[in-house]
Amino acid sequence: MSYREMLDTPCLVVFDDVLEQNLTEMASYARAHGLALRPHIKTHKTAEITRRQAELGAVGHTCAKLGEAEALADAGVLHDVLIAYEIVGEAKIRRLLNLMERVHVTVAVDSVAVAEPLSRAMQAAGTVLDVLLEIDAGLGRAGVLPGEPALRLAREVVQMPGLRLRGLMTHEGHAGRAADTAELERLGRAAGEAMVATAELLRRSGIPVEVVSVGSTPAAFVTTAVPGITEMRPGTYVFYDAASFRFGRIGPERCALRILTTVISRPAPDRAILDAGSKTLAMDPPPPGRHGHGYLVECPDAVITRLNEEHAFVQLPPHCQGLQVGDRVEVIPNHVCPVVNLQDELFVVRDGDVVATWRVLARGKVR
Amino acid sequence: MSYREMLDTPCLVVFDDVLEQNLTEMASYARAHGLALRPHIKTHKTAEITRRQAELGAVGHTCAKLGEAEALADAGVLHDVLIAYEIVGEAKIRRLLNLMERVHVTVAVDSVAVAEPLSRAMQAAGTVLDVLLEIDAGLGRAGVLPGEPALRLAREVVQMPGLRLRGLMTHEGHAGRAADTAELERLGRAAGEAMVATAELLRRSGIPVEVVSVGSTPAAFVTTAVPGITEMRPGTYVFYDAASFRFGRIGPERCALRILTTVISRPAPDRAILDAGSKTLAMDPPPPGRHGHGYLVECPDAVITRLNEEHAFVQLPPHCQGLQVGDRVEVIPNHVCPVVNLQDELFVVRDGDVVATWRVLARGKVR
Repeated sequence: MSYREMLDTPCLVVFDDVLEQNLTEMASYARAHGLALRPHIKTHKTAEITRRQAELGAVGHTCAKLGEAEALADAGVLHDVLIAYEIVGEAKIRRLLNLMERVHVTVAVDSVAVAEPLSRAMQAAGTVLDVLLEIDAGLGRAGVLPGEPALRLAREVVQMPGLRLRGLMTHEGHAGRAADTAELERLGRAAGEAMVATAELLRRSGIPVEVVSVGSTPAAFVTTAVPGITEMRPGTYVFYDAASFRFGRIGPERCALRILTTVISRPAPDRAILDAGSKTLAMDPPPPGRHGHGYLVECPDAVITRLNEEHAFVQLPPHCQGLQVGDRVEVIPNHVCPVVNLQDELFVVRDGDVVATWRVLARGKVR
Repeated sequence: MSYREMLDTPCLVVFDDVLEQNLTEMASYARAHGLALRPHIKTHKTAEITRRQAELGAVGHTCAKLGEAEALADAGVLHDVLIAYEIVGEAKIRRLLNLMERVHVTVAVDSVAVAEPLSRAMQAAGTVLDVLLEIDAGLGRAGVLPGEPALRLAREVVQMPGLRLRGLMTHEGHAGRAADTAELERLGRAAGEAMVATAELLRRSGIPVEVVSVGSTPAAFVTTAVPGITEMRPGTYVFYDAASFRFGRIGPERCALRILTTVISRPAPDRAILDAGSKTLAMDPPPPGRHGHGYLVECPDAVITRLNEEHAFVQLPPHCQGLQVGDRVEVIPNHVCPVVNLQDELFVVRDGDVVATWRVLARGKVR
């Protein structure tokens, strides 16, 4: 029996062969370019893919939150992690110290206000924490600005006992929101160049910089082409999603994860209602140039016009109006990471059969 | 120690006194107007509030998915449930039959294609299932149209062995998206009138209609004012949210749930970054007339301009720029239901202390 009949809906299906292709392609790229690969686990949140990434040569992993790292460390698959986030507050610093006893941990800092309490806690514990300066290379989120502001912060951090400044990191997520490939390349290159120039500025000032780390799947092959970048931290590449289509490098056939869903109502010839709503597809908007809440594999011209929590409203073009109540269809989500975060398991398919169920171990770990 | 220092962030805090006020107000309204109250559990997903709603006189509860009802039945708090959803597929019909052995269940049907497999399964099992016709009273989602289309479907369903047609239900969610109170009242009243007129049409055709059920918090006091409505199914009223403000009936002080979050970066005087992103606040857009991804209690003029998965970008007006790294602030979400679905627990606060932790039992039950 095929997975399409076997699984109840809505559920997340992962195609093993496509996943393996995505994993090996990125691992090969990193190897060929002398880059350390430190994938972000936020996309898959599973022990199985964490382990496979390490087998394929990842130097370690990236997490946003301590809770993600704790879950994967508990599963025995995490050995070296960058928490690409500012650790703030006593409760989290206590957890960080615990995590450091079993995993090599590096964290991001973007201000003295973040770094000082870490320094005090590490001194008190008689240990040393590796840190990277988080640089804002254009995203406008957290991070210190490149150049002089970064140098000023580096000069303070490098003198703080209990902290060892290892280098710089950024998330060039703004490049992934570019309107076209030309803009993607311009923004990605500018981000990479700002990172390398800042690293050089620090080195000229006597501050050693070993790590110059960038992270973003859309810009992965652009930012890392700047000489001087040492590490890449892509996340989405394991599954890809509909937001990945628009730069042309990959299409639906490279999406390793789909939502299997059932038509539960056909209230009008041009409208179908699916049993996957925002609790399954998530509400992340489509990228520039695309419409609706996902890509319907069986009818790419259909538009998922609205989501309620448990309903997708689908506008069907004339050639797709044969869909009936009970039919199953597959959707590629706009943004795969929050979709995985909504589920407890992924169903792994090989040659049409369900061969494994992987637990979304790090689901909901927001702390 | 106050909950604001005690809890790690981001997390969901429920104010016990406000919750109780919201629960009792709706229970009193239903009692005063002779309406059966059948709250939708999707907003809270907890055993504790399910039980309290029953204590306050709810005739039963509403769930969207079987999995929600199973979770609450397992907890021993669910006795009578409307699954306000079309049950499609053999796996779900098997689960429905199991659920019927321990809870009184009613389900929605909006087509012969949905009703016939249910009828066959109930006959085979030697049991009878209560059903309501789902009516599309303006939302344009699932449901049969009111009037003659509903009558035609009712004539078929009423003859199907194994099904007992109890009446009609709708979700008038479109009224809640009205631009102002006048439009809310117009849409809500029209939906209620369409329901009652359809019930009368069926009765005149010899089909008994006991239940005329409507459900929507924004329109709760409008639709139910139409004589002939017998049941209401509000959900959001337990907590309310920022989407509830615009009709003026309630304000932030009636929101029983807030997200407690920490400032983790202050990269510019007018920008703060919070540790609650789309994995906590959800991506549901603001209602007409409001901006951003939630209401910042400490500074209502601030705008949460963007969310990434673990970051909120906050634009601070001049009088709120004293916020520092490590400060804690509270956010009322745009739409509370998906926010609860992202968490494993709610922290219950009374007089400033955390007095209980409630498990979000029915989280993620999309099947």
